[in-house]
Amino acid sequence: MNNFEYKNPTKIIFGKNTIEKLTTEIPADAKVLLLYGGGSIKKNGIYDQVKTALAKVDIIEFGGIPANPEYSILMDALKVIKDEKITYLLAVGGGSVIDGTKFLSAAALYDGAEPWDMLKNKERPSKGLPFGTVLTLPATGSEMNSGLVVSRKETKEKLSMGGPALFPTFSILDPQVITSIPQRQLANGITDAFTHVLEQYMTYPAGGLLQDRFAESILQTLVEVAPTVVKDPTNYEAASNFMWSCTMALNGLIQQGVPGDWAIHMMGHELTALFGIDHARTLAVVTPSHYKYNFEAKKEKLAQYAERVWNVTEGSTDDKAYAAIEKTEAFFHQLGIDTKLSDYTKDYEGTAEEIAKRFTERGWKLGEHQALMPEDAEKIVKMAY
Amino acid sequence: MNNFEYKNPTKIIFGKNTIEKLTTEIPADAKVLLLYGGGSIKKNGIYDQVKTALAKVDIIEFGGIPANPEYSILMDALKVIKDEKITYLLAVGGGSVIDGTKFLSAAALYDGAEPWDMLKNKERPSKGLPFGTVLTLPATGSEMNSGLVVSRKETKEKLSMGGPALFPTFSILDPQVITSIPQRQLANGITDAFTHVLEQYMTYPAGGLLQDRFAESILQTLVEVAPTVVKDPTNYEAASNFMWSCTMALNGLIQQGVPGDWAIHMMGHELTALFGIDHARTLAVVTPSHYKYNFEAKKEKLAQYAERVWNVTEGSTDDKAYAAIEKTEAFFHQLGIDTKLSDYTKDYEGTAEEIAKRFTERGWKLGEHQALMPEDAEKIVKMAY
Repeated sequence: MNNFEYKNPTKIIFGKNTIEKLTTEIPADAKVLLLYGGGSIKKNGIYDQVKTALAKVDIIEFGGIPANPEYSILMDALKVIKDEKITYLLAVGGGSVIDGTKFLSAAALYDGAEPWDMLKNKERPSKGLPFGTVLTLPATGSEMNSGLVVSRKETKEKLSMGGPALFPTFSILDPQVITSIPQRQLANGITDAFTHVLEQYMTYPAGGLLQDRFAESILQTLVEVAPTVVKDPTNYEAASNFMWSCTMALNGLIQQGVPGDWAIHMMGHELTALFGIDHARTLAVVTPSHYKYNFEAKKEKLAQYAERVWNVTEGSTDDKAYAAIEKTEAFFHQLGIDTKLSDYTKDYEGTAEEIAKRFTERGWKLGEHQALMPEDAEKIVKMAY
Repeated sequence: MNNFEYKNPTKIIFGKNTIEKLTTEIPADAKVLLLYGGGSIKKNGIYDQVKTALAKVDIIEFGGIPANPEYSILMDALKVIKDEKITYLLAVGGGSVIDGTKFLSAAALYDGAEPWDMLKNKERPSKGLPFGTVLTLPATGSEMNSGLVVSRKETKEKLSMGGPALFPTFSILDPQVITSIPQRQLANGITDAFTHVLEQYMTYPAGGLLQDRFAESILQTLVEVAPTVVKDPTNYEAASNFMWSCTMALNGLIQQGVPGDWAIHMMGHELTALFGIDHARTLAVVTPSHYKYNFEAKKEKLAQYAERVWNVTEGSTDDKAYAAIEKTEAFFHQLGIDTKLSDYTKDYEGTAEEIAKRFTERGWKLGEHQALMPEDAEKIVKMAY
């Protein structure tokens, strides 16, 4: 096990009808900017619950934060924050709204002229406006971590950052919110969380026996509840375990003391930046090819995953490892998620080369050993065509 | 899954040679009271590491905090805190030293005349002197939670409390410390952590699918590493997984959203108060009888535990549940831990009645349904003679 430092100060408020607890979590004298996405919260009743809970608080609203939160829109929100002397941010949404709000938390107190530079320079902000979240779409884990991803149409870029000041002060997780989420987005959420765990787990045996078992626990639970979540999101047992699994998948816990990969995300982000494919679906596209390409390096963990998560008990290590990749791809298919780039776009020729070029420009080496070069990424993406 | 609120702000600093990080965790202008136990830290080198790291800090020492931290001794420490205007507490020890330090953190800012009243009244302090810990004995999980237990010889009492202000600011966990721990205490630590998990898990199926799997992960890991920990504590992989498992066993995570039992601890505390038996060993005495007595209520979870932790695949639910109790008792025996009260004292007659009397006086009802009456405790303790 590697040395690690872990601190996660976010207060989680989990369960039925918990949105009303906003009343006690946000200071009565705060000037709040309420951030949300495309407006679904106005149809599903969440907006009304939030407004009722904060009836006595001074609130300004900023809606329209898109999936893959767009820098130029966030800059509009930043202007509101500064003009209106906002003191508290409240994200009501999924990972995109929360990530955007986190970025604004840092940007509001950033000294430089161009907040995008924080992303370019991989800064780790130690100060930010306080913010809370009401999660409306389980998937990214952003509600209990300090990381964020922002996109910029102008440059077709999608970059990530994080920092100790960027944990939500509180996050409200009411599993009942998933009843109004379209099946497509539920499938995305499951796939996203599942891949988050894989990125932190599918490396090589590193002596993190407990971390491995925790990771497997989340994978097993997602596999167990996925069919019910997609078919009947009103099933509270499935919904609550789905939601808590998504949070635990990326709140920092399972990555402590063990190597992480994250190459799938780095390649996936480019597919979103280039084609606008849903984040989760880009992960499903890259995952099988990534594991096939890095088979020798990852086969021991792949085999362990096959045994413990998929109950594959027969065959050699290689057999089990191959079975693991097949089972994973079948799981995505079962959720209605396609796993080839050509399923999403006809313009895929040249994509691998473009991604390799970008990684070369940025000097990126990927994977748990930082040994995957841009030419490896090129081959992996090509395998995923 | 039940509703829950969860926040754990303790910073964990985990790994080899991490004690030196004290330098950056304790404010340079703090006036520190260094609390420790019987002095073993002066023999195993930990004291020297702490003093080196804090060479530039103003430190006063208070040693001699015994196992089951004694109220009268803590009151001596409280006098030092007040006389010397201490601003920061540093616990260097196991659960007893840390629990004692937590109590002092609250007592230092307590307004009442008699700090014991905080325990009697089950107060939940919202303020305390800041404190950090250097863990020298993995077992209780006190290094990452806000609970504590204090004993009082004068009244033969052992009472617990907790509160949001009583999380350590930081805890340093260097698994190498276990190399100097006697085998007896290592066995105690494993047993203590194992029972902590059981108390939060062995109730009834409550829809906490992920929580169940996390609990089982800790149990599986403890079972896996226990023989090596006891035989060769220099094995770092075993030591680090043992240490992290003990912390995760009682840092609040696995209890969120699910019922807890804790009757074993309540009965065990009385055995320590009456006979001075090691805390962990009292748990091993009570556990098998408690599960036999409450077999019908707990058999579904017992069978699940048998399947997932002990790989018992044959037989009916009842068969598996019985096997689970046997496997658990055998695990304690394998660690050299006796599981009958008569193994520890010849004066056990009347113990069950005395414990029932105490519970009656305190108006205690125990167990996940708060339905175990003092007369049930009497029968359980008798079964454990």
